Amino acid sequence: MIFRQLFESETSTYTYLLGCPITHRALLIDPVASEVETYTTLLDQLGLTLFYTLETHVHADHITGSGLLKERLGSHSIVHQGAGTLCPDLLVSDGVRLQMGSIEWHVLHTPGHTQSCVSYLFNDRVFTGDALLIGGCGRTDFQQGDPGQLFDSIHQKLFTLPPETLVYPGHDYQGLTVSSIRQEIQKNNRLGPDVDRNTFIQLMNHLDLPLPRHIHAAVPANLACGKVDVTP
Amino acid sequence: MIFRQLFESETSTYTYLLGCPITHRALLIDPVASEVETYTTLLDQLGLTLFYTLETHVHADHITGSGLLKERLGSHSIVHQGAGTLCPDLLVSDGVRLQMGSIEWHVLHTPGHTQSCVSYLFNDRVFTGDALLIGGCGRTDFQQGDPGQLFDSIHQKLFTLPPETLVYPGHDYQGLTVSSIRQEIQKNNRLGPDVDRNTFIQLMNHLDLPLPRHIHAAVPANLACGKVDVTP
Repeated sequence: MIFRQLFESETSTYTYLLGCPITHRALLIDPVASEVETYTTLLDQLGLTLFYTLETHVHADHITGSGLLKERLGSHSIVHQGAGTLCPDLLVSDGVRLQMGSIEWHVLHTPGHTQSCVSYLFNDRVFTGDALLIGGCGRTDFQQGDPGQLFDSIHQKLFTLPPETLVYPGHDYQGLTVSSIRQEIQKNNRLGPDVDRNTFIQLMNHLDLPLPRHIHAAVPANLACGKVDVTP
Repeated sequence: MIFRQLFESETSTYTYLLGCPITHRALLIDPVASEVETYTTLLDQLGLTLFYTLETHVHADHITGSGLLKERLGSHSIVHQGAGTLCPDLLVSDGVRLQMGSIEWHVLHTPGHTQSCVSYLFNDRVFTGDALLIGGCGRTDFQQGDPGQLFDSIHQKLFTLPPETLVYPGHDYQGLTVSSIRQEIQKNNRLGPDVDRNTFIQLMNHLDLPLPRHIHAAVPANLACGKVDVTP
């Protein structure tokens, strides 16, 4: 499998490119609107055709590139059924399996950061969006976030995967790129062995974080697949 | 590709089994609830695992087997985004491409019989549900049917396919099993070369057919994936 991890520095967002070496089809997980030119160039260099864009959720911090990529390259966007976006091509739910050439993946519904968060499991690696971050997790104080639900998603859907599964998050703010389920079970600050469900809920309910800088522009823009003017 | 055309005689419904000989995965197009036992036996005989069920639309005449098959075999149901069903696993839209093992197909949104009718194009054959029948078409007088829309769906989406494409309909009441796009363009009674759009609309608006016998049980049952008691 062709694999690239791409970083958008303004919002510390990871985007992932996965490609099938047989069909030369590619997908992007969580593409960012401002990076569409970069993706197009990279796809050209690798000789790949963009087939799907996969969203882990409706983002509050950055604008999805899925709509622009569809216009430019004819890709189809995949989101969770509960996302309420205005222009998805394929709406998925927990347990569904999809295939692109030689690549296959499972959809895991992992709500809690938002109601429609999903993780995508590709054999030995899982893309967790903002549900499970390296050493942490997404916040739960907007977009119908729910700390108890996030605790259950992570413990029941992600921590039950094979321990050697690689964890690729939607963001990292400290330069970390990848972890594993084993490492997160053992070492995650918010979700490790010493943190029970009630402690986690208390912790998450008292983070007192400011809202993401671009949330009031980003959420409506993402509900329109990133095709809305988002000039602050 | 493994291929079987199955007939349910009470409602003259065709169900199609397509299987991948490499992965031994199968899908069923428009399965009927009363035939679930038959499908299960057939899949066993062929050594196939049921992976997906595909609905061409919310049926008014028979009850889908998708819910029962999901419970029994773990298959996932695929329907159009506009179907409004309560329990789909994967919601598709026009132009989306999906793959199961070595089998790939396109979704063509072909509304008019109902708003959420789709046809599924698998390389050399198209499964048209109740949009295009052999020598005819589905009625347009309930479930938001629209004769002008059906005319456009058939002429723009189906009659533009390669003429040798095989046409497999959702029903036939005269023992016909398969046609081709070329034959339908030339010979379809309601949609052939002599029938313009206005003539078609007039014709469809004056069919004066009785409602399907089971419509008041079938539609709500199908909106619940066939898992509602449908005893008349």
